[in-house]
Amino acid sequence: MKIKITGVGLYLPPKIETAEDIAPKIGKSVEWIIEKSGVNERRVSIIDVDQMGALAGKEALDNGGKPDLIINASGVPKQTIPDTSTFYQRELGFEGIPSFSIHCTCLSFIAALNTAASLIHSKSYKRILIISSDRGTRGRNFDEPESASLLGDGAAAIVIEPAKSVDESELIYFDMKTFPSCANLTEVRGGGTHKHPQDPNTTLADNLFTMDGPAVYKIARKEVYRMMLKTMKITGFKREDVDWVIPHQASGKAVDAYISTGGFAQEKVVSIISEFGNCVAASVPMAFATAVKDKRIKRGDLLLFIGTGAGLSAACALVRY
Amino acid sequence: MKIKITGVGLYLPPKIETAEDIAPKIGKSVEWIIEKSGVNERRVSIIDVDQMGALAGKEALDNGGKPDLIINASGVPKQTIPDTSTFYQRELGFEGIPSFSIHCTCLSFIAALNTAASLIHSKSYKRILIISSDRGTRGRNFDEPESASLLGDGAAAIVIEPAKSVDESELIYFDMKTFPSCANLTEVRGGGTHKHPQDPNTTLADNLFTMDGPAVYKIARKEVYRMMLKTMKITGFKREDVDWVIPHQASGKAVDAYISTGGFAQEKVVSIISEFGNCVAASVPMAFATAVKDKRIKRGDLLLFIGTGAGLSAACALVRY
Repeated sequence: MKIKITGVGLYLPPKIETAEDIAPKIGKSVEWIIEKSGVNERRVSIIDVDQMGALAGKEALDNGGKPDLIINASGVPKQTIPDTSTFYQRELGFEGIPSFSIHCTCLSFIAALNTAASLIHSKSYKRILIISSDRGTRGRNFDEPESASLLGDGAAAIVIEPAKSVDESELIYFDMKTFPSCANLTEVRGGGTHKHPQDPNTTLADNLFTMDGPAVYKIARKEVYRMMLKTMKITGFKREDVDWVIPHQASGKAVDAYISTGGFAQEKVVSIISEFGNCVAASVPMAFATAVKDKRIKRGDLLLFIGTGAGLSAACALVRY
Repeated sequence: MKIKITGVGLYLPPKIETAEDIAPKIGKSVEWIIEKSGVNERRVSIIDVDQMGALAGKEALDNGGKPDLIINASGVPKQTIPDTSTFYQRELGFEGIPSFSIHCTCLSFIAALNTAASLIHSKSYKRILIISSDRGTRGRNFDEPESASLLGDGAAAIVIEPAKSVDESELIYFDMKTFPSCANLTEVRGGGTHKHPQDPNTTLADNLFTMDGPAVYKIARKEVYRMMLKTMKITGFKREDVDWVIPHQASGKAVDAYISTGGFAQEKVVSIISEFGNCVAASVPMAFATAVKDKRIKRGDLLLFIGTGAGLSAACALVRY
């Protein structure tokens, strides 16, 4: 699909929380944290997801005019109703722009990228703003040291438009698979009809993030590897053709697996996990925005967005930037 | 876009709750309820949204083979993570089918319909299952009689495939607008990062549905009317050409406005509000499924899906069935 990413934005909350800061809260050493999660520090936001996302969105729009669609592609909403896209629009100062959310936890951005490309391809829209904004630190369970030491806050945004005939830019390939047999490996059980807040059986822990990290890693590594091989086979590209692998920053180990198992050169895999942690759905676009802003990613580069998320799902998108 | 709705499913929970049943809970008379909400009775589900949605989804699939994408298009999720589409898939007994959620409250189904049509148009998928399943009764605030007397439970599903060249079927037109200046008129403030359950300032009422009905009605009626006129103007159809208006069942008054203000003949407006109440995002596909199953809607009919939802958003889709 002939689409072009014409704008990129990033919001990093100024407050830094280090592994030293959280070690006493989870009863583990700094060494344990670095080994298990690979997260040296993360940002902690004092503003909510809508304001964070709007700051990233504003940078992505860069005065290039209003979008004609706003898609929220985050892991956790601001509130149950209305959906977060409405609040982004309010913070951006717009009125009347259609907006909705796409949700599949950590893969929301990759799924939204393909969906937005289809909506442009069908001429439904011409300038789509996708925003991913997550406050992972808001739902940490300090009784679960591994996941609590992973999560961070951040937001990123992109603008997608139709590519011009002279542009190389396109979305070349997209794939996604969801495995509900692994649905309970990563959860926030509260917040909906299942463990409703007014239900006396709902516990505080039900409203916090829980993950069986080792079990997820084992399945995720296998499924992502399969999907990567299939993508290369179908598209005819080789690992060496990919200029940048932009993975979900699930954990230090998960990002390293694209090198050790995936066979990609270390310098081609964009990793921000050590500095920013796992920022849920914002991780993928934050990694992308970071490498665009420091000028590693250049026009014409071949990008592989890839990762897994709660569901359990695996997804990837091969994009000519 | 050349798409065809090839399957329809409906799940109605067996338990009926009448206006008489809830009158004492909200301290109002049956007459007051009928006048304000237009809801004589609603269904109350004892199974959760994923099981309800899977029952509707199974009927829509009708042994015609597995879908290649499952979209959840509901107002309130089963839980925060993972998204509800995963749980539908688990209940349907599938594994490996990509799935995600589209959320814009009561308009989730109409937005998902257009998105699914684009995904088929771009050849990303060939058989998409859209499921809307909501348990509005789970979040009722009995201290707010008007909204509490409106909500009901239900689920409906459709299957969308590419239309064959001999088929008349297509999605002719889609429009949507979101007005964040009205974001606070319809809310469930809890369930996300804004009023997090672990925040001591979060109240029980924050987790319940709240709506300024008269304010919503005033704005919604005007915006929907404008959108309907614009749709007729752009597509060249007249009101008489539309065989069936399938509105969101916001309230008795809101459905009647398509006749009194909208100028459509009463017998063309599908109304299920009196029997089933406002079932959030499930209302639109439930009304559609009801009129397909009782054989009012026939192949080749011109359908206008239309409504408003929290956001505040207005949307419509003109479909040749």
